[in-house]
Amino acid sequence: MSAATAVGAGPLAIIAGAGRLPAEIAAEVAERQEDVAILPIKGVANADFSAFRQRPVGMLDPNGVLAALADLDARAVIMAGTVHRPGIGLVMAGYEAVRNREEIRKVVQGGDDNLLRGIIAFLEDNGFPVLGVRDVAPRLMAQEGLLGRHAPTEADTQDIASGRRALAAMGLSDIGQGLIVAQHRILAVEAAEGTDNMIRRVTGLRRKGLIGRLLRHGRPAIAEQTGGVLVKAAKPGQDFRVDLPAIGPRTVRLAREAGLGGIAIEAGSVLVVEREMTIRAADAAGLYIIGVAP
Amino acid sequence: MSAATAVGAGPLAIIAGAGRLPAEIAAEVAERQEDVAILPIKGVANADFSAFRQRPVGMLDPNGVLAALADLDARAVIMAGTVHRPGIGLVMAGYEAVRNREEIRKVVQGGDDNLLRGIIAFLEDNGFPVLGVRDVAPRLMAQEGLLGRHAPTEADTQDIASGRRALAAMGLSDIGQGLIVAQHRILAVEAAEGTDNMIRRVTGLRRKGLIGRLLRHGRPAIAEQTGGVLVKAAKPGQDFRVDLPAIGPRTVRLAREAGLGGIAIEAGSVLVVEREMTIRAADAAGLYIIGVAP
Repeated sequence: MSAATAVGAGPLAIIAGAGRLPAEIAAEVAERQEDVAILPIKGVANADFSAFRQRPVGMLDPNGVLAALADLDARAVIMAGTVHRPGIGLVMAGYEAVRNREEIRKVVQGGDDNLLRGIIAFLEDNGFPVLGVRDVAPRLMAQEGLLGRHAPTEADTQDIASGRRALAAMGLSDIGQGLIVAQHRILAVEAAEGTDNMIRRVTGLRRKGLIGRLLRHGRPAIAEQTGGVLVKAAKPGQDFRVDLPAIGPRTVRLAREAGLGGIAIEAGSVLVVEREMTIRAADAAGLYIIGVAP
Repeated sequence: MSAATAVGAGPLAIIAGAGRLPAEIAAEVAERQEDVAILPIKGVANADFSAFRQRPVGMLDPNGVLAALADLDARAVIMAGTVHRPGIGLVMAGYEAVRNREEIRKVVQGGDDNLLRGIIAFLEDNGFPVLGVRDVAPRLMAQEGLLGRHAPTEADTQDIASGRRALAAMGLSDIGQGLIVAQHRILAVEAAEGTDNMIRRVTGLRRKGLIGRLLRHGRPAIAEQTGGVLVKAAKPGQDFRVDLPAIGPRTVRLAREAGLGGIAIEAGSVLVVEREMTIRAADAAGLYIIGVAP
């Protein structure tokens, strides 16, 4: 509750990693006439933030981030964009300077989303509520209905339904938020490899044909299968500040390379990065993108 | 029911693909003093069947298979072993000679296990009941308890439990029968790629570290993670004649390369191919293999 008692009167502060997402969020916030400031991570953030107030910060300098937030009297914080290497080891080293080793060990050993949870707890313990894209820039999330000019067939719609049933069942076990279904068959399920690698896997399966072990496993039909749909949704109880399902132009390109017919995303829960480019790419590739009701 | 009314008085006939499994099945059946005969698929079967009666058949010659079964007055049939290319196209061509195009289309379009279901229906319609390994050679299936000299730790046991919960949830959607869990996190889920490729994926994830997209997806800990368990089980209502979960020496080698601590298989539902070699490989690699109650 310390967060609730210490909210500032200043801007929403966006800690910005790479990519255009931080700028897209800032633009939507600014359109609402709300005060916004960017904390571009030095050497990582690469979008054009010239329209906004900026306070560059070091990724390995949590105290610098706190100082910038205090100086801005930020009312809330959002972390957006991507961060590649130096990655976890160095981040932990910087983080270690301001948290005790026991907490660090918990965060690292817990794996997966716990590092971000640790950073969120660190910011909120210091009086800065952390929000998610969904709270701050809802228009960046998928809405219900078609996003381009192509639409799913009746068969596609059945595959989407079976994919969503499967995701709902898996969500209870905190498994990934994506899978690929073709002709009633689930070809791939996303876990730690991420959505892009899961789509590439289907491309490879189709190239190879996967005829082997016919008698023992009876999986001959993949080579013949075409079409299919990438289905993405949120897990039950997902913390969107920590893990945000997203698609973008690259998702469309990979889906086309995998021979998929389209992409179905849960309305309100999946971010569409670079929406115009994403829709243009899907239209050009003959793929549908549809937002489906939760 | 035509199958039930037309059972022969002769041997159990094993239609044999590649690998040692058909010979292992024949040996277990013969040990029970039951009559057994092998139908080695020409150019595919490669085990030593010299101890058994043999009627070589062509993979693309369903009528030849029926003739051999009738000639033997086979009381039942089992299909075992692996078949690689020429694969589905040619099989269907041969099958097409004796079934109508409409059935063929159903079989192929249904994908996955439907080809085997079609072959099973074809054999049973012609009076030859088709059995599964589990019915015919139950001792080849995993039993409860440890298969080698290594045992899971308390943490491993927790990962096994969470993996089995996830498989149970996924089974309702007819998703694959395997996954890999490490430190409470599901790293990979098997679908069309098969168990071996799923294990290789985890090897790759660990080599690469998978630090990317830290802020967006917060998945930094894989690089640090070691251990973990491959969990395999049957789907609810699985037809073991069509799809038989199996592990063998290669599974152990791949699990070791992926840095896993062991393998957990559902007792009575997972086949252990080349059991002695499999156990020896696990003992040498320091991996546990445990059969867990369904």
